[in-house]
Parts: sequence; C-alpha cells; structure tokens
Amino acid sequence: MLFSPSITRLVEVFRRLPGIGPKTALRLTFFVLTMKNEEVQEMARALVEAKKRVRYCTRCRNLTEDELCPVCRDERRDKALLCVVQEPRDMMVIEKTGQFKGRYFILHGALSPVEGIGPDELMIPQLLQLIKDKKIEEVVIATNPNVEGDATAYYIAGAAKPLGVRVTRIGFGLPVGGDLEYADELTMTRALESRREM
Amino acid sequence: MLFSPSITRLVEVFRRLPGIGPKTALRLTFFVLTMKNEEVQEMARALVEAKKRVRYCTRCRNLTEDELCPVCRDERRDKALLCVVQEPRDMMVIEKTGQFKGRYFILHGALSPVEGIGPDELMIPQLLQLIKDKKIEEVVIATNPNVEGDATAYYIAGAAKPLGVRVTRIGFGLPVGGDLEYADELTMTRALESRREM
Repeated sequence: MLFSPSITRLVEVFRRLPGIGPKTALRLTFFVLTMKNEEVQEMARALVEAKKRVRYCTRCRNLTEDELCPVCRDERRDKALLCVVQEPRDMMVIEKTGQFKGRYFILHGALSPVEGIGPDELMIPQLLQLIKDKKIEEVVIATNPNVEGDATAYYIAGAAKPLGVRVTRIGFGLPVGGDLEYADELTMTRALESRREM
Repeated sequence: MLFSPSITRLVEVFRRLPGIGPKTALRLTFFVLTMKNEEVQEMARALVEAKKRVRYCTRCRNLTEDELCPVCRDERRDKALLCVVQEPRDMMVIEKTGQFKGRYFILHGALSPVEGIGPDELMIPQLLQLIKDKKIEEVVIATNPNVEGDATAYYIAGAAKPLGVRVTRIGFGLPVGGDLEYADELTMTRALESRREM
C-alpha cells in the first residue's frame, strides 16, 4: 500500500472506463489531484448532470436532453431519408462528411444471439414503425462491416423492404488513400463486388 | 450541434485530462451515459473525495490522506536511505522492483528555469533539511535521464554532498531485453560510460 484509500479508490473508478488500463488510471488520478478544487467539483458535476439529464430521443434514439434530439428537431433535414447506425459516434462520423441530409436511427448495438441481443433490444420494431409512420423513402443502413453488423443489416433490410421502402447499405471497399498491397482479403473481396462502370 | 449541452460539457471535461483527445473523450462520455446512475454518482464522489482528502506527506511529499504517507509510516524501512524522484508514479516504478528498502522524497517536477521552476518550487531546501535532520547516509537520485532531470540531479548532488551524505544516481544504459541495434546514441553513450568490470 503505497497510497491512501481515496487515491486507490479513484484509480479503480478510472479503470472502469473503456480503454483505461492501470497505468493510465494512475496518471489520470495524479492529474486530478493536481487540478484546482473547483475544477474537480466541476468535473464531478458534469458527470452527474449529463447522466441525469440525458435520455434517448423518442424518435431516433440519439442521446439528448429533450424529447427530440437536435437532428430530429432540425426542420431542414430530409424527412424521407433515414440512416441506421449502431452507435451515436457512427452518426458523428457520417455528419462530419456533410454529405448526408437525412435523419438517423440509432440501434445502440447490433444483433448478437450469443449475447442475447435480438431485434427488440435494438428497438427494430420501433424503427419499422417510424419508417411506416413518417413515410420514409430510403433507409441507408450503415452498420459495421462485420458479422454482427452484416446480420443486423440483412435483418433490417428483410423487415423494411415489405413496407415499400428503398433499402441501401453504404459501400465497402478500399479506403481512400489506402494501398492495394495492404488490403486484407475481405476488404478486397468487397471492393471487387462493389466495382462500378467507369 | 449533434448533441445536447450536458453531453458536450462532459466531453469537454474529459478532454482536459492528459492524453485524452476528442475521440477518446467522446467514447468515455458515451460510456458514462450507459453506466448505472449509482455508478456515475460513485465516480463523481470518488473524484471529489480524493481531491478533498489527499494532501502531501509532510516528510516526503508523497500523496496521502494523513500527516505521513504509508511509506514514511512503515518502520521497517531503512531510515538512512533516501531516494529522490520527480513524480509519485516514479516511486511506484521503483517500489515494483521490491529492491529498494529506503524512503523517498518526491520533488513533483524538475528544475526548469524557463518555466520558472527553481529549487524552492521543488522543495529542495526541505529535502536538504530532511537529509540533515534524519541523518540520511545515502541519497539515491532517480530523476529522469533528460536535460531537466540531469540538471536537477546535479543541483541536488552539489547541495547535498557538503552535508556529508553519499549521493548516487541510478544507472543508465541499455534496457534489459533491448536490442543494441535499436539503441539511440545517447543511451549508447551512457551505456559505455556505465560499463563495469566483468
């Protein structure tokens, strides 16, 4: 025991965060102890406040403080276009391109029978209802290009198509600026499948 | 504005921590929002409590909740041996070896005229007083092997030697398991300087 209980406690608390190992937890702890009192109070308040205020947007399941999230409240958005993503951060990646003018639906996960995550856990019935009620014309599926993401994409496509909506999935292939030499087989296979006329 | 103010606020707060960039801050924020209410409360409490309770050990300047830190309270420690380190985490690295049986003095920095950090800021007068009062026989300097750490080591050595104490510095050279081929010139120079009879 080199350190006192309240220090060890803070290290433990930091370690619960994703991607924070023992060394980083210690570094963060020591940093916090050098911060001003008010700053630490502010940090603690920000944690509790965010957790207290934030809930899911009733429409798209984005994180928000209000009934509807800022994206769903934005009247300039194309109401007929809906992009389905796994996580809020995926939405951010798409927003950064500035190319997508529609709205989103956030699954907060992907289908995973092993982990007991089925369509109900991902609120897919709610998604299908939204597609019907809001007269969506195109659903762009942007789940991850892996087993769970693929399964989720196929499931949603199968359930949404009978509603008369166009269902697309974002393209896969070589990343821009990437080098053919270093592409793995699966990416290369997808790139070949996604080839277009020039 | 994709997110609500309290989310943005929490992202900002995480970004203040060292080594936490915008992406990690966002990831941590989303994670916190999926945590249980009580867990977030507990995290907030751990922050405030640690900051409130922790102060410097009056003897060695380690972080502690008490007048003296656990290391200084440990009567089995060699009272004549004192290791000087820059940061509490440096102390931990040395403790992990299980080879050092003395006590420590933590400078919380290194001499840096540019940043206005002189001997007084590092409590070096207090260190010298400790060496005198506690009849220290050997001071092992374990500041970092860089410009500031070297300057600090030389300053302390110069001030401590007249007190009749033996002053040593930890060895420098090739890391164990390291490869000669990848050693930089400075490390190699130090390794040559530190050569020993076989």
